[in-house]
Amino acid sequence: MNDARSYALTAIIDLALSEDIGSGDVTSNSTISPSREATATMLVKADGVVFGLDVARAVFERVDSSLEFVALVEDGSRVSFRTDIARVRGNARSILLGERVALNFIQRLSGVATVTAVYVAAVEGTNAQIVDTRKTTPGMRTLEKAAVRAGGARNHRFGLSDGVLIKDNHLAGVGGPDRVSRAVRLARSAAPHTLAIEVEVTTLDEVAEALAAEADIIMLDNMSIEDMSQAVALVAGRALLEASGGITLSNVSDVVRTGVDLISIGALTHSAPSLDISLDFELV
Amino acid sequence: MNDARSYALTAIIDLALSEDIGSGDVTSNSTISPSREATATMLVKADGVVFGLDVARAVFERVDSSLEFVALVEDGSRVSFRTDIARVRGNARSILLGERVALNFIQRLSGVATVTAVYVAAVEGTNAQIVDTRKTTPGMRTLEKAAVRAGGARNHRFGLSDGVLIKDNHLAGVGGPDRVSRAVRLARSAAPHTLAIEVEVTTLDEVAEALAAEADIIMLDNMSIEDMSQAVALVAGRALLEASGGITLSNVSDVVRTGVDLISIGALTHSAPSLDISLDFELV
Amino acid sequence: MNDARSYALTAIIDLALSEDIGSGDVTSNSTISPSREATATMLVKADGVVFGLDVARAVFERVDSSLEFVALVEDGSRVSFRTDIARVRGNARSILLGERVALNFIQRLSGVATVTAVYVAAVEGTNAQIVDTRKTTPGMRTLEKAAVRAGGARNHRFGLSDGVLIKDNHLAGVGGPDRVSRAVRLARSAAPHTLAIEVEVTTLDEVAEALAAEADIIMLDNMSIEDMSQAVALVAGRALLEASGGITLSNVSDVVRTGVDLISIGALTHSAPSLDISLDFELV
Amino acid sequence: MNDARSYALTAIIDLALSEDIGSGDVTSNSTISPSREATATMLVKADGVVFGLDVARAVFERVDSSLEFVALVEDGSRVSFRTDIARVRGNARSILLGERVALNFIQRLSGVATVTAVYVAAVEGTNAQIVDTRKTTPGMRTLEKAAVRAGGARNHRFGLSDGVLIKDNHLAGVGGPDRVSRAVRLARSAAPHTLAIEVEVTTLDEVAEALAAEADIIMLDNMSIEDMSQAVALVAGRALLEASGGITLSNVSDVVRTGVDLISIGALTHSAPSLDISLDFELV
Amino acid sequence: MNDARSYALTAIIDLALSEDIGSGDVTSNSTISPSREATATMLVKADGVVFGLDVARAVFERVDSSLEFVALVEDGSRVSFRTDIARVRGNARSILLGERVALNFIQRLSGVATVTAVYVAAVEGTNAQIVDTRKTTPGMRTLEKAAVRAGGARNHRFGLSDGVLIKDNHLAGVGGPDRVSRAVRLARSAAPHTLAIEVEVTTLDEVAEALAAEADIIMLDNMSIEDMSQAVALVAGRALLEASGGITLSNVSDVVRTGVDLISIGALTHSAPSLDISLDFELV
Amino acid sequence: MNDARSYALTAIIDLALSEDIGSGDVTSNSTISPSREATATMLVKADGVVFGLDVARAVFERVDSSLEFVALVEDGSRVSFRTDIARVRGNARSILLGERVALNFIQRLSGVATVTAVYVAAVEGTNAQIVDTRKTTPGMRTLEKAAVRAGGARNHRFGLSDGVLIKDNHLAGVGGPDRVSRAVRLARSAAPHTLAIEVEVTTLDEVAEALAAEADIIMLDNMSIEDMSQAVALVAGRALLEASGGITLSNVSDVVRTGVDLISIGALTHSAPSLDISLDFELV
Repeated sequence: MNDARSYALTAIIDLALSEDIGSGDVTSNSTISPSREATATMLVKADGVVFGLDVARAVFERVDSSLEFVALVEDGSRVSFRTDIARVRGNARSILLGERVALNFIQRLSGVATVTAVYVAAVEGTNAQIVDTRKTTPGMRTLEKAAVRAGGARNHRFGLSDGVLIKDNHLAGVGGPDRVSRAVRLARSAAPHTLAIEVEVTTLDEVAEALAAEADIIMLDNMSIEDMSQAVALVAGRALLEASGGITLSNVSDVVRTGVDLISIGALTHSAPSLDISLDFELV
Repeated sequence: MNDARSYALTAIIDLALSEDIGSGDVTSNSTISPSREATATMLVKADGVVFGLDVARAVFERVDSSLEFVALVEDGSRVSFRTDIARVRGNARSILLGERVALNFIQRLSGVATVTAVYVAAVEGTNAQIVDTRKTTPGMRTLEKAAVRAGGARNHRFGLSDGVLIKDNHLAGVGGPDRVSRAVRLARSAAPHTLAIEVEVTTLDEVAEALAAEADIIMLDNMSIEDMSQAVALVAGRALLEASGGITLSNVSDVVRTGVDLISIGALTHSAPSLDISLDFELV
Repeated sequence: MNDARSYALTAIIDLALSEDIGSGDVTSNSTISPSREATATMLVKADGVVFGLDVARAVFERVDSSLEFVALVEDGSRVSFRTDIARVRGNARSILLGERVALNFIQRLSGVATVTAVYVAAVEGTNAQIVDTRKTTPGMRTLEKAAVRAGGARNHRFGLSDGVLIKDNHLAGVGGPDRVSRAVRLARSAAPHTLAIEVEVTTLDEVAEALAAEADIIMLDNMSIEDMSQAVALVAGRALLEASGGITLSNVSDVVRTGVDLISIGALTHSAPSLDISLDFELV
Repeated sequence: MNDARSYALTAIIDLALSEDIGSGDVTSNSTISPSREATATMLVKADGVVFGLDVARAVFERVDSSLEFVALVEDGSRVSFRTDIARVRGNARSILLGERVALNFIQRLSGVATVTAVYVAAVEGTNAQIVDTRKTTPGMRTLEKAAVRAGGARNHRFGLSDGVLIKDNHLAGVGGPDRVSRAVRLARSAAPHTLAIEVEVTTLDEVAEALAAEADIIMLDNMSIEDMSQAVALVAGRALLEASGGITLSNVSDVVRTGVDLISIGALTHSAPSLDISLDFELV
Repeated sequence: MNDARSYALTAIIDLALSEDIGSGDVTSNSTISPSREATATMLVKADGVVFGLDVARAVFERVDSSLEFVALVEDGSRVSFRTDIARVRGNARSILLGERVALNFIQRLSGVATVTAVYVAAVEGTNAQIVDTRKTTPGMRTLEKAAVRAGGARNHRFGLSDGVLIKDNHLAGVGGPDRVSRAVRLARSAAPHTLAIEVEVTTLDEVAEALAAEADIIMLDNMSIEDMSQAVALVAGRALLEASGGITLSNVSDVVRTGVDLISIGALTHSAPSLDISLDFELV
Repeated sequence: MNDARSYALTAIIDLALSEDIGSGDVTSNSTISPSREATATMLVKADGVVFGLDVARAVFERVDSSLEFVALVEDGSRVSFRTDIARVRGNARSILLGERVALNFIQRLSGVATVTAVYVAAVEGTNAQIVDTRKTTPGMRTLEKAAVRAGGARNHRFGLSDGVLIKDNHLAGVGGPDRVSRAVRLARSAAPHTLAIEVEVTTLDEVAEALAAEADIIMLDNMSIEDMSQAVALVAGRALLEASGGITLSNVSDVVRTGVDLISIGALTHSAPSLDISLDFELV
């Protein structure tokens, strides 16, 4: 996991283990001998894209560093019903201590990757790219953004500090009839020069104004398909265009046909159902 | 929030703010004057059960303790399209700093409460109770379990230490033809006497054995409707019966009719879509 | 230490090291060469039950992961004057950095195990079980509860969330002449079904009421020996009976003879004197 | 609490609350209405010296900042059976959430202060001072050292970095027939000049050597009463003399009569029984 | 401090207080009565730009929330010898507990702001902007970047995630004769679209290649004044040009005259001497 | 690093990595293959004293424990232009993730050691010792104090708890014409006996008073060279004398000639410029 910060996962993994383990596993401690060994196999029970094997490994490592975890597929692989994806060997009580938390991470992240892949497939063969949003699960942003990439889409800004996105509230803060162009110029002069300037607009007039102010990216917020098409014609490649708001699987093809460059979908992270994954356990 | 541990939310709230805010909000800092004030109204855009107002309050409080947050409904209220649920007043930049994180919490938790309420409605008028599982979002268990209660269902054990639940893996650890009854007795003698003993079984013979061993709760794992009915007849109130595995809205009524006491549903927490909630912002 | 959460000890161990080491060991740094090696032997200087070897190992590991720690007896062993219980080898300064903290943990925990063993011996041959309370040292509950088990007794609930214990204050909260039975029923319906219901009573009438309300456990608070005997007769095995309050080594035999199932003793953890253990250090 | 670091208590208080509260107080939540108010009075049930009121206040404040805590005596006061020492008013559930942790702190700390006061009384009227050691409870050193002061004794060094104490192991590290004087000089030249130099000796010859090397403090380790008297005569006020090892209430008077300046007692902190304190609770 | 994350300063402030206060202020506790009040005035003793008043306020607030801190000038003000910049009132011991840490923060940050202002003055009246680097003090980046802004310069990227800066090592990673253009295109397609693409070059040929590949910013690394001038002519406003490497006060005017847009200076943060500031203390 | 607390560096290292890495290295992730290996050599680009190799090792270890770090010189070595001081081998992305943070630590600490060595050289051949102050960088005190030792000077107290230093504010707190001697005696009786008593004075009369009160160390605050000489004559070795205030390289020789024992210099830590060190990177 060297492209994320493996060390940065400690906080969320410890929080998750702490809330699940509490003062100890009263059931395993009553029924399984402390020195008993086991082999457990993680397998998926539905088609999808798996993501989170490195997190699962980190969970088991945190519980008991003597557990041996072997991934059988790579993070980002497409898997189908009953594919074995990982194996854990070692102390039986330790495996059971980490089981639920490891599954909770990998099921949720694989759910995100799987939903993302469905949207990506829907735009395949076009120049449009699916991007995510900041509507992620508290504490899981690094992981969910990685799951989105694993599903084939591209990341929008990570948070408030690595992208300028001027929204209606900021435009109101600037005020005046030329608020779009003034806001773009304010951001250009005050924000670090390493950041592109994106501005959210709702009308074609605002598109023209943003373009004139040399915005790098123009977000078309809840615009009609017709207006988006006209915006594409108007901009003619001089800025990136991002469609946003109310886009679902049923209308994403229409959006693609307008020629926008980017389509952002909050549902990739805020409403992806978990992928069904379980752990088959065998005492040895 | 005095029934949960308000102080214990610090970790997950700080994690969420930290990942969203990074080194600061470059957009607001470029476009909104530092002393500007605003009023923002949180409103729901779909029917559901709202939960998480206290968390949202804590998020805004953490960002800037001079913000004034007023809940307009109580946590657990049924709300409908365009209900105003809260109002925040104060420094405009501060409100925008907390906005996304506050919404990410309340949308997810309200999603859990809303899905729960649908299941609870499906068993209304019967003696069966819907209960949750440990299939929660990492870092959010306290909050999601509270959302489940807000949706009208009941909590199963919080984690590994506050309930004995003997599963197939533990039975394998005990071994032998009488493993169900031996496991129940082992747990009875070793676990704290303050915990009830629950055992997961898959056949009617095992139900009988668990009953004879005086298990307090018997979990019927992926049993047929027919077998569950027989288990209810067999047990005749001498233990609680919990149905588990593969229960959805489409078959929950059938399960209820068998007469089981408890129905556990992982989807309450692992696959609830977010409730759509937004923040309307007005500069003053 | 796989039945506790070894990872969860980090907080208390780091706190203890931090307060002892401060900005460094000015004495060893002045008098012992940085590359000097040593062998140190931990030995007990009084008869007792040793507990805390795994914690001592974790302390030395945290100070310097190149130290080699070998336990010479198992946690929970009975030891006598001048038994060697562990050996540490490696950098001399590192051993001295961890020495006091390791001893502070193991002396206190062995003190708890030793006192517990004395109470357990006093009820040997009967069906009564000694149990602990929540009167533990701040930050040490997991460890002290494990020490109690090492001393041969059984754990009561770990904290407020893994056991229902209705006390006088809760009864007052419920109120009314039938407050015992109403409180039991309230808890039965609201608390997770995985928890047994215990209620504290002070009179035989309340015992009868608790029994009628189907409490799982009835705590006899500061009752006379005579009343406890009558409670046992009255309940006749239909609930567990726990004696609590003012029980010491001088009266525990009388309590046992009443036939109660459980005897809870706060002094196991709140007033156990340390077991005398020291570290013999030899430079090599 | 401005002489300790009130902010530094957060760690141990949060650890203690976290281990006690877990996922919430299932009993109070079932039986006491969320808006119910109460007044609770903390009272001692044995004679002693109370210490820890500020910590108790901090515990209740952490649980619920709307609780009102009033100390009725000052920290360090002598109290007797049934003295009321503090009152807490506010939400009933919140008081019960903090009760056990607050009591666990104050009972232990008052135990330390009480035992200390007994030793201090035993040397009253002499020039000798009772001092503590590093044999404290993990995580509680700041608090226990303050309790020792409250009991009338004086603190030895807080940890390894604020005092030079050359022990047998350090002397062995230095080696040679003149190891006492060489060790004192090494420490004098290498340790910060703000620290006094103390050296532990076992014979009168070593006392003479330490004195010649201008040690500031000489610790007489497990010396006979006779030898201690001779050491006092030999040193004649040119260094402080500290008696250490095996000193109890039964022999402390003999030690005092030798004329040593300081008497260090590990039992002040490692074996002090808790002072019996309870919380009387009244719903309003 | 609402443009940074006031809550995020907790970690570095606590670290600083913890290392300074250790187990308590032995001097003040010996010589100043616990209830004594004082007024302290912070004053500068050299000309400069002050920055860090909000941090100083946070330090005193953390030590004792009853202290009253009033800033007498605004962060970012130019100040001269003996300007009073802040006043703290309240408990005398508490003020002394926070004094050194508050001064350590504000002296260093004012040093950064002051050095920055000198560089900014040296380019005044031109279009060039001074920018900072990632060569900041560990733990202080947010604060030092804010001090740079207070000194009148502009921030470069905050860290590795909010700006693409392709350096020689990355070019080597890409390899091949067209590595500059390939690297720019790789970054354009893989990094979030919200980030501008900057590439570091050392020759005019590479400038041309970077321009052809549509880099947003071209960093001229240790180029001669002559080459920088030619690069400016070549690029003619189609990308931002940043001069970097070996730029000091003695040559910055030459660099400015080349017409580059940005001049980055590591010394703003890695070698700024502290501004002399002290705290005048008056007991009341 | 066994004389500091290697485990205690975790906090400042994590803070530094977290602020630099944010959500990941977008540049390396776009341009360098995840499995690419590299060798990097750390070399100094100016004469000086290197310190911080152990910290650099810890940084790379924290980023990726599979990186191999080899120090080529020892901490505290004198180095000159283009000396190779360390080598790191392993995953290329991982090395780049840790590069800037490792350099930021070692450059600053080597700067402190280098400036210290210059002052130490200036007093060489005399009995005077250079000592540091508490004017350190927030979060870096342990490391900067170690760098001072590496530069050949001696440490003053680490913080408020390991040295008594009575300053003007404390004297004001005591009050009265005999405030110097009263303050010394108060500290002697109340502070731990393991600490020497230092008092800051400004006149020769106060020197005499401090000496009469048997202060261990007398700090001569901003005294003239003439007065310092007289103070040395007056004290005649019966206490240590420390010169403090306004001492720079240009006047330190004059100070030394007065015969004072200790010279404290805040600039060792508050204004040392970084030593120029870079990392040469070669892909393999």
